[in-house]
Amino acid sequence: MESSSESIRNYIWGKNTVLETISQNPKRINKIFFSDGINFDNKLKKIKELAQKNSIFIQFTNLNKFNKYFEIDKKKLTNINFQGVIASVSPVEYQDFETFLNKKSDKYRKIVILDGVADPHNFGAIIRTLVAASYDAVIIPKHRSCPINATVEKTSCGAVNHIPIIKANSLPSIVDTLKKNDWWIIAADGQSNDNYFEISYKDMNFAIILGAEGEGVSKTLLNKADFKIKIPSSFESLNVSAACAVIVYESIRQIHQM
Amino acid sequence: MESSSESIRNYIWGKNTVLETISQNPKRINKIFFSDGINFDNKLKKIKELAQKNSIFIQFTNLNKFNKYFEIDKKKLTNINFQGVIASVSPVEYQDFETFLNKKSDKYRKIVILDGVADPHNFGAIIRTLVAASYDAVIIPKHRSCPINATVEKTSCGAVNHIPIIKANSLPSIVDTLKKNDWWIIAADGQSNDNYFEISYKDMNFAIILGAEGEGVSKTLLNKADFKIKIPSSFESLNVSAACAVIVYESIRQIHQM
Repeated sequence: MESSSESIRNYIWGKNTVLETISQNPKRINKIFFSDGINFDNKLKKIKELAQKNSIFIQFTNLNKFNKYFEIDKKKLTNINFQGVIASVSPVEYQDFETFLNKKSDKYRKIVILDGVADPHNFGAIIRTLVAASYDAVIIPKHRSCPINATVEKTSCGAVNHIPIIKANSLPSIVDTLKKNDWWIIAADGQSNDNYFEISYKDMNFAIILGAEGEGVSKTLLNKADFKIKIPSSFESLNVSAACAVIVYESIRQIHQM
Repeated sequence: MESSSESIRNYIWGKNTVLETISQNPKRINKIFFSDGINFDNKLKKIKELAQKNSIFIQFTNLNKFNKYFEIDKKKLTNINFQGVIASVSPVEYQDFETFLNKKSDKYRKIVILDGVADPHNFGAIIRTLVAASYDAVIIPKHRSCPINATVEKTSCGAVNHIPIIKANSLPSIVDTLKKNDWWIIAADGQSNDNYFEISYKDMNFAIILGAEGEGVSKTLLNKADFKIKIPSSFESLNVSAACAVIVYESIRQIHQM
């Protein structure tokens, strides 16, 4: 599945992120470190309980020694607030596109395709929004996208464990396959004449394509889209994670108000 | 207006942020630094042109020497991509609430009140969204909120120059004053029974109150709200800047589709 460069040991931290991961996907967790002499509140208690239940090794230690490991995105973060807990984890496993596509579903499915979103904060925030909105998957290109690193896990609040993440060799061929299978393709495009709330998201499987900030969705993918939509703005375009939230929740609103 | 602690010299960087600021608010800029031997593209040319027009001092230098100044939010950022330009700026001036309130307006006005949003990325992203959506102001509490530092300016893409930012000694008394002046108060509240798309944002002046992550809007303010709304989620609540985008753009959709 994954290249060796991404199977290096990884860490996550913070009560919510660790609790989400151990609840949802305990097999990913190799070991849990609690801060020496920490007071166990309800969340930490729950983490400890689930660790014991899943036979995960626990160690009490001075968490500050971890700071030196956490040079993320070329930014050296100092004074991270670990909230008393760090976990060593295996990487999130990517899902296979064909398996996802062929899975039987008794409802229409909704996915997002990220065409080159490289910023880990945006990627994490988008995953969190998609899980909140019960979206069915997110597809990213094998190249030009952000790996699921500690920043992504943290920003997503552990949501990376709740949604299939699919890595594609070629987004255009993914889009072609979706179209052949009667999915509708919606691309965000600042140049479009149609506002995002002027199309219907009901009664169909659909994929929303969002592009990198500045560049937007690539021309190849725009040409394949069934609908192009914009978010009206009297300033620059929205940040990509804000844009994602606006469009995704418009689809939720429409489906909810059927 | 401002306390001395906030009138210290500040820097902004990046083509879009510097261009937005010099276009919108040239008086804030004290000096512009270009990278030694930089190739001037259209944006940098425009910045240089506006600097000359406004008699702003320009200096060519090695921008890397600035890295040591930029210890922001207790995180030491290394390898910042300045995109060839840094500006030394005066702080954004806060606006006066009474002046804003009493200003004549021929249309209904829309504002956001941030009840303790401390994260600079969220604050910057929220300001960018509000400017995109042509909102009329943002109100923050004097204490418990994020100062408008370089991270906020950068994340907002210079949008801080496009919207009145009001600092309140007391949010409850601001809300009381708004209500006395026939404004409607809408508070985000995960416990509410009403979805954000089930209320009408049309034909009224209104303020949307958003709370800090985890804590939400304070009880005092919730009790003063005319409407409490939630964003449906099958996971944790949305990130506050995503939540802001969803609610703000629902108001835009409703007003647009009148």
